[in-house]
Amino acid sequence: MKHLFKVMWIFAAIMLATSSSYAAKRIHWRIALSWPSTLTPLSSPPIKLAKLVKKMTNGKFIIKVEGAEKTKSALGVFDMVKGGAFQMGHTGSYYYIGKDINTVWFTTIPWGMTKAEQDAWYYYGNGMKFMEQVYGKYGMLAFPGGNTGVQMGGWFRKEINSVNDLKGLKMRIPGFAGKVMAKLGVSVVNIPGGELYTALDRGTLDALEWVGPGMDIRMGFYKVAPYYYTGWHEPASEMTFLINKKAYNKLPKNYQVILKTAMKAVSADMFMENFADSANAWAKMKKEYPNIKVKTFPKPVLKAMKKATDEIMQSYADKNPLFKKIWDDQKAFTKKARKWSYMSRYYYLKASKEVQ
Amino acid sequence: MKHLFKVMWIFAAIMLATSSSYAAKRIHWRIALSWPSTLTPLSSPPIKLAKLVKKMTNGKFIIKVEGAEKTKSALGVFDMVKGGAFQMGHTGSYYYIGKDINTVWFTTIPWGMTKAEQDAWYYYGNGMKFMEQVYGKYGMLAFPGGNTGVQMGGWFRKEINSVNDLKGLKMRIPGFAGKVMAKLGVSVVNIPGGELYTALDRGTLDALEWVGPGMDIRMGFYKVAPYYYTGWHEPASEMTFLINKKAYNKLPKNYQVILKTAMKAVSADMFMENFADSANAWAKMKKEYPNIKVKTFPKPVLKAMKKATDEIMQSYADKNPLFKKIWDDQKAFTKKARKWSYMSRYYYLKASKEVQ
Repeated sequence: MKHLFKVMWIFAAIMLATSSSYAAKRIHWRIALSWPSTLTPLSSPPIKLAKLVKKMTNGKFIIKVEGAEKTKSALGVFDMVKGGAFQMGHTGSYYYIGKDINTVWFTTIPWGMTKAEQDAWYYYGNGMKFMEQVYGKYGMLAFPGGNTGVQMGGWFRKEINSVNDLKGLKMRIPGFAGKVMAKLGVSVVNIPGGELYTALDRGTLDALEWVGPGMDIRMGFYKVAPYYYTGWHEPASEMTFLINKKAYNKLPKNYQVILKTAMKAVSADMFMENFADSANAWAKMKKEYPNIKVKTFPKPVLKAMKKATDEIMQSYADKNPLFKKIWDDQKAFTKKARKWSYMSRYYYLKASKEVQ
Repeated sequence: MKHLFKVMWIFAAIMLATSSSYAAKRIHWRIALSWPSTLTPLSSPPIKLAKLVKKMTNGKFIIKVEGAEKTKSALGVFDMVKGGAFQMGHTGSYYYIGKDINTVWFTTIPWGMTKAEQDAWYYYGNGMKFMEQVYGKYGMLAFPGGNTGVQMGGWFRKEINSVNDLKGLKMRIPGFAGKVMAKLGVSVVNIPGGELYTALDRGTLDALEWVGPGMDIRMGFYKVAPYYYTGWHEPASEMTFLINKKAYNKLPKNYQVILKTAMKAVSADMFMENFADSANAWAKMKKEYPNIKVKTFPKPVLKAMKKATDEIMQSYADKNPLFKKIWDDQKAFTKKARKWSYMSRYYYLKASKEVQ
């Protein structure tokens, strides 16, 4: 009897040690977003991630999504994940150029790579290595988190026919693109999102850039500014998942793989969602306001934008060796990749236009 | 003592019943490929899928990859998965148009959607619904399984300056595209892959299409045919994962989600791999053989190809109501989506060309 009792204890101990329900005890994480949790498609990757991870782990790994409406700190995601208040964040890397200029490389830059080129650079070039280097300093891991594709150049009340037409133009255009526009004489202004429509309607603003048709339609800009310029300044804006490294290292190995796989799947999905949204929204806007027109800036304007971009980039490269290193790497990768972009998608779309 | 003994038994029984290691017993699947397991990037999705699924389940869900070198039946994947000999397959849906013409919709068609458009159609249009309808009849589930993007129009020994230059041209070009070329007077021939290089070198063949730079470089065609024509016939060739529905239904729910998430992640990855491969391969080929030239067919040739494509598609639509239904749906979706493709990526690439 005593012997059997001992066997039972050993048996129970082995069960405890080997059972996954014990080994993987319930884990609770929180993810902070730089956008309201209702602002799809930007909020879609973290929301879908949380659902997938929960299902894949039979409810044992729970990620609670907290949108900017709750944290009240859209641009505090970097610090909240770094400090460990949140295990994860979903944000735009380039929001943090004030902390570290090299965060800019993981979103998009004016005249930069397309989404396909950038994805190839991340996973089959040096992109992930540089991202690890830049974010590793802050005790964080970072991963691509969904892409809008090419963002539109913005809504303009009047047509732009020359560089001169940009002088004194009052435009809302933040970030690097704003610096470029300022160099060309644009009066770059910052107005909260909620006041943009009225400002554009009343002429307090002459122009503004937002995202693309899918997100712009909700803002109503097409009702008050008829010229919709094609993009140059954010060719492939990538969202970013940030993860506190200590929290990540505590995860069971299989949960780490589950998390990484789900991030990759939901990132791919966000581009699809935004693409479909944009196609549908453009059709709807054009039907409602047939006078809105898609325009491309004239060649001299584009050339001036490119020149100003190069000068700004060079000024950072002169000051920051890592900036220069990543810039050189992106340029070398893009040089090869862009040739393939033209050979493949560009000439296909061109031929398709010609046979219509 | 007796009481404690009883408690122990109950405890052990509960441990057994609730432990995941018991609930999820080890599962062994096999996946059959339509390509050799070494033929990356085509074989990459299933190989990466198997690795991820194994890691995500702590080695409890094992998918054994069997390439065409083992099964000796590249085009038998449909039947092997349908019959249950394999639980999964990785193949090209359009290989099976002989069994069911509507399998064609899940790979690519001449003058069809780009990858971005097609992805949006799959996940935010009616694509997945139609895929389920077509494959459901055969007791299978089907999922997108990776994309090559635009395939090149092929390698030509001589330049094509008119529709007349196509007459009597001996070309290897299978599938729907072959039917289109035949309508234009091309003598479409079928030669095994291993003999293509010699045939092209000796002039037994005047032209052939394969995939794109990344895969074409290993075949050496650039050494014997200097004109590399841009694509029209396979704008976004999607690979397909097939799953035996009965096998899928037997999986624990969390394994189903793990499998689906991993399929989406590895599919996205294949496009990135092929994009990087193609960019690198083109640079290498061009350096080794500076005389090779990228050409686009002249407008009258493109128009003739488009007309022949429409006629062939119409002939199937006349015979098969589901074919007509899916074709109409794709056309309606593409009409909206293509506008966004031009507004976003096309004009961005055009502007980038102009500022060089």
